[in-house]
Amino acid sequence: MAATMNRQILLKSRPAGEPSAANFELVGRPVPRPDEGQVLLRTLYLSLDPYMRGRMSAGASYAASAELGRPMVGGTVSEVAESRNPGFAVGDVVLSYAGWQDYALSTGGGLRKLDPKAAPLQAYLGVLGMPGTTAYCGLLEIGQPQPGETVVVAAASGAVGSVVGQIAKIKGCRAVGVAGGAAKCKFVVEELGFDACVDHRAPDFAQQLAAACPSGIDVYFENVGGVVQQAVWPLLNNFARVPLCGLIGQYNGGAPTPGPDMRSILSRRLTVRGFIVSDLAPKHPEAAEQLAEWYRSGRIKYREDVVAGLEKAPESFLGMLHGKNFGKLVIKVA
Amino acid sequence: MAATMNRQILLKSRPAGEPSAANFELVGRPVPRPDEGQVLLRTLYLSLDPYMRGRMSAGASYAASAELGRPMVGGTVSEVAESRNPGFAVGDVVLSYAGWQDYALSTGGGLRKLDPKAAPLQAYLGVLGMPGTTAYCGLLEIGQPQPGETVVVAAASGAVGSVVGQIAKIKGCRAVGVAGGAAKCKFVVEELGFDACVDHRAPDFAQQLAAACPSGIDVYFENVGGVVQQAVWPLLNNFARVPLCGLIGQYNGGAPTPGPDMRSILSRRLTVRGFIVSDLAPKHPEAAEQLAEWYRSGRIKYREDVVAGLEKAPESFLGMLHGKNFGKLVIKVA
Repeated sequence: MAATMNRQILLKSRPAGEPSAANFELVGRPVPRPDEGQVLLRTLYLSLDPYMRGRMSAGASYAASAELGRPMVGGTVSEVAESRNPGFAVGDVVLSYAGWQDYALSTGGGLRKLDPKAAPLQAYLGVLGMPGTTAYCGLLEIGQPQPGETVVVAAASGAVGSVVGQIAKIKGCRAVGVAGGAAKCKFVVEELGFDACVDHRAPDFAQQLAAACPSGIDVYFENVGGVVQQAVWPLLNNFARVPLCGLIGQYNGGAPTPGPDMRSILSRRLTVRGFIVSDLAPKHPEAAEQLAEWYRSGRIKYREDVVAGLEKAPESFLGMLHGKNFGKLVIKVA
Repeated sequence: MAATMNRQILLKSRPAGEPSAANFELVGRPVPRPDEGQVLLRTLYLSLDPYMRGRMSAGASYAASAELGRPMVGGTVSEVAESRNPGFAVGDVVLSYAGWQDYALSTGGGLRKLDPKAAPLQAYLGVLGMPGTTAYCGLLEIGQPQPGETVVVAAASGAVGSVVGQIAKIKGCRAVGVAGGAAKCKFVVEELGFDACVDHRAPDFAQQLAAACPSGIDVYFENVGGVVQQAVWPLLNNFARVPLCGLIGQYNGGAPTPGPDMRSILSRRLTVRGFIVSDLAPKHPEAAEQLAEWYRSGRIKYREDVVAGLEKAPESFLGMLHGKNFGKLVIKVA
């Protein structure tokens, strides 16, 4: 281990509305040395995900805020660079939550060893990781899609949405995606196998969505809010289910965005349920096993948007909030 | 059967906003004669319930609108006055859906024979009927209250709310009611045994509600919307459940009332589910058995507001929409 500098990207300030590069700060610190029982982790891949926007704010969210002056939080695939923990050997590859930095210490708690031969390592940050698990558990546990029903998901080319739609197809549903731009929509239909995908930037988006859902919508996997939600809501059938795990289209607004008229929830007997992936932990083992099987057999495909260089994390993250990524966004750190 | 006139209260027009007596018309028609296979029912008690407001409108609701020029719909306890159906004898008392009129014909389908010795007949329109079943199934199936949790219900002295709170107590929860005025609040606490009841007319209602729920709210049985919902929402705990079966406080507004900020549903992982009692039909037998047992053993009490005279139905119904009744509103027709 010749490296002596640990680059860290700190949360410097909390955004008021739209976040910007000024909210982050790149610093160089000495590489820490592990104490007895610890391991030193070297970050190979850093996952960038929409939920991180919530962590930047001080307001109550579903998890504690990231701390000011500390490295931004985030899931990583890391390699054990030094070990003073008998459970880990140098060269072991683990799933960790080391954040936006080159190196981190760990006591080993919460680390999950990965098999580099089973799948590309970065897949454990996407289809085989938190986003895939979110899609699996949220769709099946809360959405409860039945064969023949119509499932709609936004950000359909993204890490979560792409898996939602493909599972919907496996379960015998009509899968309709929403994405930004013709290229993403084409990918969602032609590569991922959705029945349709509608461009939310189209001036007649709502009409196009209605045309793509001739039997209405039975499950709306909600991860964006905003204009997509507004177009979806009138199409929801009686007894439709709305698993709600993100509102990326509303994260930057100052004032709360009013939700849909409660009378629609009553008259159509909708179920709207917010969740984060950890709430559904009892289903995680099933998800891991099933997703790995579908991945191996080629039934679930995915696309990655891999950006090289830790220093690119802020601008890549900010671009993702505007849909500039195409597929699961991952930073290749080392 | 000496009677020759059947008084009917027709739905004359649909309300634009607030309904009024002008939306109804009292007419006299000949008493119909049963054909072979039919019975003639004489209405003893007519149930008046908030859901009827929705039936007056043409807009899509959870059930078909009442028809213009036809008797208003409603549940009744009726007596068989003539029978040409071998399944029914003159004098049998049945639960029916005969509507706002003295007499109605039936083929016998959907009628349920009642035992006049088991309970006062009108109880089958309240605690042992649709309102009690709504409370039981909605609270237990959707609300899933756990011992030690806090359950809040509005219209707490009413037909549904009173049962919700008493079941919550039986299940080991803290039951907090909301009602209009000191007399109702006193009744809810002293007679029904709720832990607290807050007057929604108080200027510091929201503060009082917060004080009555020191550990927040885990189940909000939503049947009113409006200002009560606004006061409840900030108090909902993580993973709170909101069974939604009515919005009486919003029925008369023209424009849809925006719902709570979806971000609250996400960040606190709430479940909001609209339902009507028929959606939970698989649980009805259990509800009927359990409610009857609790009723017999005195564990569930209720209050009735019985008004004599079919002709009083419109003004009684309109008053109920403003909380003028005190207890389950029933019209004694004969």
